[in-house]
Amino acid sequence: MPQESDYEKLREMIKDIDLCMLTTVDESDDLHSRPMSLNGDVDEEGNLWFFTSSNSHKASEIERTPNVNVSFIDSRRQHYVSISGMAELVHDKEKIKELWKPVLKAWFPDGPDQPDVALLKVTVNKAEYWDGPSSTIAQAISFVSAIITGKQVEFGENKKLNGIS
Amino acid sequence: MPQESDYEKLREMIKDIDLCMLTTVDESDDLHSRPMSLNGDVDEEGNLWFFTSSNSHKASEIERTPNVNVSFIDSRRQHYVSISGMAELVHDKEKIKELWKPVLKAWFPDGPDQPDVALLKVTVNKAEYWDGPSSTIAQAISFVSAIITGKQVEFGENKKLNGIS
Repeated sequence: MPQESDYEKLREMIKDIDLCMLTTVDESDDLHSRPMSLNGDVDEEGNLWFFTSSNSHKASEIERTPNVNVSFIDSRRQHYVSISGMAELVHDKEKIKELWKPVLKAWFPDGPDQPDVALLKVTVNKAEYWDGPSSTIAQAISFVSAIITGKQVEFGENKKLNGIS
Repeated sequence: MPQESDYEKLREMIKDIDLCMLTTVDESDDLHSRPMSLNGDVDEEGNLWFFTSSNSHKASEIERTPNVNVSFIDSRRQHYVSISGMAELVHDKEKIKELWKPVLKAWFPDGPDQPDVALLKVTVNKAEYWDGPSSTIAQAISFVSAIITGKQVEFGENKKLNGIS
């Protein structure tokens, strides 16, 4: 069984790595990904929050198919994280202002009130991480965070995978 | 239009990064990923070749849904690659021996003749890469490599994306 410390470790890993690849399913059922910055936005329930334009290609993709993957790689430390979840667009202006950071002006020059600013919320179904050297058998701990509410954390089954091959 | 040099750059980037995340669709339609080593195995047609066990979870996943994504991240240099493709298991013993490398003994202690050794071939539908600093607007060049045969390279439409947000 994964421990509370595993969950904390996962949070630390993804906050530390920050830049990730978000994979979505397009209208041809192709899977494609693009780099995204998380900006540390993991909430108490374990949801991930990204900024996006409501006019973006990925916005229409997740409306058609909400299933997404978020992958984090720290190649130097050989940390790898896979998060499977369901994505939705959130247009809540209060939440947008709460999470807004000045660096976002590079994409939204008019700030948080720019009409197309939206949030992409990922509700996590399953998370796995690997933190071993690539040349040895890696282990992954997976757990369902849908059952994580507030500070109350219950973990699913500990799952060991057979390495990276 | 992407140039021959763009294709060469993409090949160099993925060979240089090597470790990637392979995203598949599971039996619940969840997208999940795991680290994989490419070992430099990109062939003349632009196909990617990975070693895997024919008993692995991903082997059964790609039989159900062959659509996959392969993502490469070099966080230090801020290089990101997304490859959309179709995966298939290949059991050709000649090809397995051709691509075999001693490092694979960590996963297949009995060597290339171990019964469950298989190849996972990814035929590329689309590739995109980003090679800019994360804080500025990144550009991506995407092209269809299904039309790449041997040394004859024709590129699809040049596509510029709107950054990493």
